[in-house]
Amino acid sequence: MPSSSFSGGDFDTQQPPYGPSPPPLAGAELPSFRFPLGAVAPKVFQGGTAKEATVAEFPVSDKLAGVYMTLEPGALREMHWHANAAEWAYVIDGRCRVTTIDPENQAEIVDFGPGDVWYFPRGHGHSIQGIGPGVCTFVLVFDNGYFSEFGTFSISDWVGHTPAETLAKNFGVPASTFANFPKSEVYIAQGPVPPELPEYPAIGTLNAPPLTHRYRLLAQAPENFPGGSMRVVSMRDFPISSTMTGALFVIKPGGMRELHWHPNAAEWQFYIRGNGRMTVFGSHGRARTDDFGPGDVGYVPQGYGHYVENTGSDDLEMVLAFNNGIYQSVSITAWMASTPDLTLATNFKVPESTFAAFPKGEEVMPD
Amino acid sequence: MPSSSFSGGDFDTQQPPYGPSPPPLAGAELPSFRFPLGAVAPKVFQGGTAKEATVAEFPVSDKLAGVYMTLEPGALREMHWHANAAEWAYVIDGRCRVTTIDPENQAEIVDFGPGDVWYFPRGHGHSIQGIGPGVCTFVLVFDNGYFSEFGTFSISDWVGHTPAETLAKNFGVPASTFANFPKSEVYIAQGPVPPELPEYPAIGTLNAPPLTHRYRLLAQAPENFPGGSMRVVSMRDFPISSTMTGALFVIKPGGMRELHWHPNAAEWQFYIRGNGRMTVFGSHGRARTDDFGPGDVGYVPQGYGHYVENTGSDDLEMVLAFNNGIYQSVSITAWMASTPDLTLATNFKVPESTFAAFPKGEEVMPD
Amino acid sequence: MPSSSFSGGDFDTQQPPYGPSPPPLAGAELPSFRFPLGAVAPKVFQGGTAKEATVAEFPVSDKLAGVYMTLEPGALREMHWHANAAEWAYVIDGRCRVTTIDPENQAEIVDFGPGDVWYFPRGHGHSIQGIGPGVCTFVLVFDNGYFSEFGTFSISDWVGHTPAETLAKNFGVPASTFANFPKSEVYIAQGPVPPELPEYPAIGTLNAPPLTHRYRLLAQAPENFPGGSMRVVSMRDFPISSTMTGALFVIKPGGMRELHWHPNAAEWQFYIRGNGRMTVFGSHGRARTDDFGPGDVGYVPQGYGHYVENTGSDDLEMVLAFNNGIYQSVSITAWMASTPDLTLATNFKVPESTFAAFPKGEEVMPD
Repeated sequence: MPSSSFSGGDFDTQQPPYGPSPPPLAGAELPSFRFPLGAVAPKVFQGGTAKEATVAEFPVSDKLAGVYMTLEPGALREMHWHANAAEWAYVIDGRCRVTTIDPENQAEIVDFGPGDVWYFPRGHGHSIQGIGPGVCTFVLVFDNGYFSEFGTFSISDWVGHTPAETLAKNFGVPASTFANFPKSEVYIAQGPVPPELPEYPAIGTLNAPPLTHRYRLLAQAPENFPGGSMRVVSMRDFPISSTMTGALFVIKPGGMRELHWHPNAAEWQFYIRGNGRMTVFGSHGRARTDDFGPGDVGYVPQGYGHYVENTGSDDLEMVLAFNNGIYQSVSITAWMASTPDLTLATNFKVPESTFAAFPKGEEVMPD
Repeated sequence: MPSSSFSGGDFDTQQPPYGPSPPPLAGAELPSFRFPLGAVAPKVFQGGTAKEATVAEFPVSDKLAGVYMTLEPGALREMHWHANAAEWAYVIDGRCRVTTIDPENQAEIVDFGPGDVWYFPRGHGHSIQGIGPGVCTFVLVFDNGYFSEFGTFSISDWVGHTPAETLAKNFGVPASTFANFPKSEVYIAQGPVPPELPEYPAIGTLNAPPLTHRYRLLAQAPENFPGGSMRVVSMRDFPISSTMTGALFVIKPGGMRELHWHPNAAEWQFYIRGNGRMTVFGSHGRARTDDFGPGDVGYVPQGYGHYVENTGSDDLEMVLAFNNGIYQSVSITAWMASTPDLTLATNFKVPESTFAAFPKGEEVMPD
Repeated sequence: MPSSSFSGGDFDTQQPPYGPSPPPLAGAELPSFRFPLGAVAPKVFQGGTAKEATVAEFPVSDKLAGVYMTLEPGALREMHWHANAAEWAYVIDGRCRVTTIDPENQAEIVDFGPGDVWYFPRGHGHSIQGIGPGVCTFVLVFDNGYFSEFGTFSISDWVGHTPAETLAKNFGVPASTFANFPKSEVYIAQGPVPPELPEYPAIGTLNAPPLTHRYRLLAQAPENFPGGSMRVVSMRDFPISSTMTGALFVIKPGGMRELHWHPNAAEWQFYIRGNGRMTVFGSHGRARTDDFGPGDVGYVPQGYGHYVENTGSDDLEMVLAFNNGIYQSVSITAWMASTPDLTLATNFKVPESTFAAFPKGEEVMPD
């Protein structure tokens, strides 16, 4: 499997702060690591829908949260920013257009299709519009489980709560300009589908940021294993994504993602199709198994052991996101393979010969 | 306007940790973002005064705090360090001499005058002495709202609480040396004005740190706009200031600092002269407007939208400090200018033509 | 004394997050900074013992915690990882063999003897086995006072809580293979002493990480002072140790470690032999003195002033660890030496001549 971690002194430099276990993880029993987002009724707007899994709904997920959103052609998730989180997204179906602005006032407008990923650094402005044909569906992941609580700042909400005289001065236009502007948050607005982007930007118009916001994850050549395939995108391949890594897994029937853990990140999962089972190991004899299906969200705290099995008869497809721009994973199989059989025999109190048939390295996805 | 942010993967690397909103910001209504520091009675010492705005006095300001201090000629704010904060300062009036020491035991002694800025990394020792003529007045800003709570360590307090026999061993002098040393914290002591610093240090005496602690902000050429001018000093121009950025704004009568937000920092303000009004936008329909005058402190949480208007007939002059060594600001005007009119029309539910007369880029300070 | 801190903008970049004082430090009186780990009854396993000092036992030590462990020849502290802390260790007596794995699945197997130090980044797998002759004794330090609370993940615990059918699929072996594996955590297991490591690894077998986990601290040439000697190992000399610095001090009878503070780290101490007295200064007139002997643990919060005196008639030997890969220390003696006598006279309200006999620079360990 690919490994994007940097060498040497950088091992620990992107670690989140240390401290006690959060309350949901501090008991003798582990909580469920599944949240049935698919079964939640969405908020419905003209042209779109949204539903979310944050610490309010899924208390264990304090480091990452997510939103499932749909946009009809022309429906615009309005211009907004997140004051307390970066945003990573994976487009499941359909097409959308994204506008962004950064603190250099550099802007990018780019179209996304199925399998594309975006990343917006914390506090950068952006909008998302369905451009058809058909509904655009995507999942958003934020690197803060508390992102939603007074964290999303919408331009209509701001302008609607600013006096017209002030807006007039700010924009150098008459106050009457704002008479018909919305007075409260629009969130999603239905409009026409915008025209295609020009193939070449007009001469002298470019003010793009140095790093693009789009990565075509599905176009990445997958890594193939006996039990499935994976695509991983970290800041190594997608430099703007400095605080998050994402992945797309396809696990075959009978296959599994082997026992492993992530030293430097929590993991957030969205199950797109198929059926799976995940067991999370939380030390001190604590292990928790949950079954997952389409629309479910899973979560693994940083450093916790886990594995995912395909329990169905079709492929299991899932999106993953981690709260670290560097991807790190340790495989129990590789760990045991690198440890002398005599040490393993002492550790597990069984004969040395027990380990003769064990794999000689990481398996990633055995079948 | 100037932009000191670094490119690419560095966008997020100096972000403070994420988490839930602090209690003062977690309600349906926003609290006041004004603290009338000027109206507070100072602590009075021989030769000087001090008063502070920390989370104890101004609960919303958990990321930054400030002190307003005056020193008569010869009055010494004694040798001390801050265990839990870096210190940034702006000299409003008069002159003072600063001594510092760093963990290499490298020392700098340098004089400050009106418009000068200093920065001391967390835990570095320093003292400040008025050197006349006249009173020296300055505002200190700390990158921790809790800096004052058991965070200031004074040398007289330490030596006064150390047995004379131990001091004798530590310094290799008789214990009787310390018979007349203070037994408790001096804080400010009146002494003679020290002699002028030599124009050239004596040969072989230099043990200065590689980075100076002084930046002459008022000597920086301002950036001029229709509604005023600004000077910004980040670690780009003042490398030692790795955790804070500062600024000096002059807003003309009728002018304003446009609608904007800072993706990577909270903002602390001290109003020197004139009268202003700030509105802070906190998402979810929450906006709060306060009026400010000389001696007032203002605060803007990280990522919150805000703007400042000069409501008086004279210039409004204010000092700003941010808890990030990289300066980042996003302008709503630039954001809208970079967004297609069709998208704006959909977003605000008004005709496309509405935006024909809007500015084509950042305004910074319109009038 | 050596100083490993980096220059310029890096001064503050490895600072832990700011905030209010933790409760044990927020009162009018300072708590004790001593924990008698030596007097605690250890947990006893077949072949080894362990006892710990974490926030549960020693509430003031929220940034660092420690474990004292013994392993008979052949006794194995089983394969495990720490989800929430890096581990630094000093071997006091005997020899042991360490295995490690990192997120690149690169493994190192290396032997340690008296005076050797190891460092494992957060979440990296490792095991430790006594290899005789005699008992191996070492002290472990973690950069999180909460490391022990659901933070240690043992391979036997994990495998014991995974269904045999899943293990069979994961490792590609029959489920019956696991019939006799332990069902709960082994922690320490007695086994045979493993053979000596080969002098040269077999051709083509090397899969070692780029940075070694071992530093031979006792083999480092000490820095010698009138009152004792010190050895310090930071990431400058031991690059993998990116979040911790360690040290070994020997203070002569009548000697002392002078008054100083660490701007960027808390300090954790283990007293190996001799008798000492430490005073910690906590600002606001708060100072606390404790006596220490063999087996005691000491703690100094970040930025707090402190000094250690040898109060016995033999050498005082102690191990120190800091929660920062960069070593920083400021000496009150150097600070005063770099400050003009006139300033000192004003500060302490005594004649200038008082300071004529004071040292002209850092003393580190006076006698």
